[in-house]
Amino acid sequence: MFIIKVGGGKNIKWDYIAQDLKKIKEEVVIVHGANAWMEEIGSKLGISEKMIVSPSGYISRYTDNRTMEILTMVYCGLINKKIIAYMQKHGINAIGLSGADGRLWLGKRKEVILSQEGDKTKIIRDSVTGNVESVNAELLQLLIHAGYIPVITIPAITKAGDLINVDNDRAVAIMIRDLKIKKVVVLFEAPGLLDDPMDENSKISVIRYNKLDTYIRKTSGRMKKKLLGAKEAFSFGVKTIYFGDGRIPLPISSALKGKGTVIY
Amino acid sequence: MFIIKVGGGKNIKWDYIAQDLKKIKEEVVIVHGANAWMEEIGSKLGISEKMIVSPSGYISRYTDNRTMEILTMVYCGLINKKIIAYMQKHGINAIGLSGADGRLWLGKRKEVILSQEGDKTKIIRDSVTGNVESVNAELLQLLIHAGYIPVITIPAITKAGDLINVDNDRAVAIMIRDLKIKKVVVLFEAPGLLDDPMDENSKISVIRYNKLDTYIRKTSGRMKKKLLGAKEAFSFGVKTIYFGDGRIPLPISSALKGKGTVIY
Repeated sequence: MFIIKVGGGKNIKWDYIAQDLKKIKEEVVIVHGANAWMEEIGSKLGISEKMIVSPSGYISRYTDNRTMEILTMVYCGLINKKIIAYMQKHGINAIGLSGADGRLWLGKRKEVILSQEGDKTKIIRDSVTGNVESVNAELLQLLIHAGYIPVITIPAITKAGDLINVDNDRAVAIMIRDLKIKKVVVLFEAPGLLDDPMDENSKISVIRYNKLDTYIRKTSGRMKKKLLGAKEAFSFGVKTIYFGDGRIPLPISSALKGKGTVIY
Repeated sequence: MFIIKVGGGKNIKWDYIAQDLKKIKEEVVIVHGANAWMEEIGSKLGISEKMIVSPSGYISRYTDNRTMEILTMVYCGLINKKIIAYMQKHGINAIGLSGADGRLWLGKRKEVILSQEGDKTKIIRDSVTGNVESVNAELLQLLIHAGYIPVITIPAITKAGDLINVDNDRAVAIMIRDLKIKKVVVLFEAPGLLDDPMDENSKISVIRYNKLDTYIRKTSGRMKKKLLGAKEAFSFGVKTIYFGDGRIPLPISSALKGKGTVIY
């Protein structure tokens, strides 16, 4: 079994992903984002997206209860069901689930979040964000063994029954641990990890695990986040991560052939 | 096993439903609406709700592709995940699904819809609506036997993989047939079926099946729709339908005790 994590950009071609998936013989679980739509729908509904930078430089979305409502609309509603339709169109019997369904992603809410704003560190108490701590592996296995492909997205849920926004990369790391996953394919809107984020020709083909820290030090923003996610995935037992282009035909097969960036 | 169908009104108390459900020993499947929110969110996103009246007096929502996007946001996102959170809060391990997930509600799109506007009958071709024709009973049984409570909502899906808006009552009727359901509880924002829709004291306690046609003839609007749905349910094998108040504590138990309207 392996995980396919797909970014939330508008240029991701789900038609290509579904077509390619038909040829994959291994069991898969899909985890997806919906970032680009969140900004669009949120602003139409009068909620402007606020990002929080932690004192250690970690970026996350400020999520109050109103933002959580829009998050469920966009991630679990609009995008998850669009993906299910694409899958079904290609004969793949996919089931869309949030981390809250069947306590698939069980986590803890952070009571306090620190936000670095220039010199000041602010304390935020009304953000319904947290981290996934365990995965309902039995539910995923039940569905997969019955022939379904789970398509999972945020939010997660706490023991108390509160929806929480969580980082997808962290959630994937816990899935790696609880499902004993050795292989992850990450599809996004780039040919692979780029040495210069503005230059698609600067693709890095291979990163050995022992060089990961060097790359983490010299990168920033989204790229740093991806590499930190990769590092955590390795610490939970993954052996290879394949980054690949989610905009091209055969995106999964191409990534698995090493046409993007391979971290091993 | 029985079905609990819950209306999409804003005064439905999901907290009460979840509390009551904890005491129910039988297996259940929940089907829910989200009508009141659909109007609100739709208008905020600049889509005004249009209802179509068929030449035979049947009312349905005009659903083009844009409306379908909002429908998935509101039904599968906002409301379905709110319900899941209420259930989990009370220790009920619920799983939210749309009719598209795992081809749970497989249906056919109507290529043409007739809309009666005064004297004129218009032909509408861009409405993505249809009817459920079969239910994935294996998927529901798989989840229920593993201890989960499925919480289902629109849309359904066609064989070609298109999302379609369907009438919940019709979908419930097909579930009755394919799951051999004998008992349905319908919760809404009234103490039961009312003789006079404006008077909550005009509750009808019991309707015998052979009197159903008489009631269908003398009622109109939503009440007529409910009775037509009831009639279809009986034709598919149901033995008793319990209508009850979704705004009060112990809503399911009360309905099952006959405190609303019982059709048998």
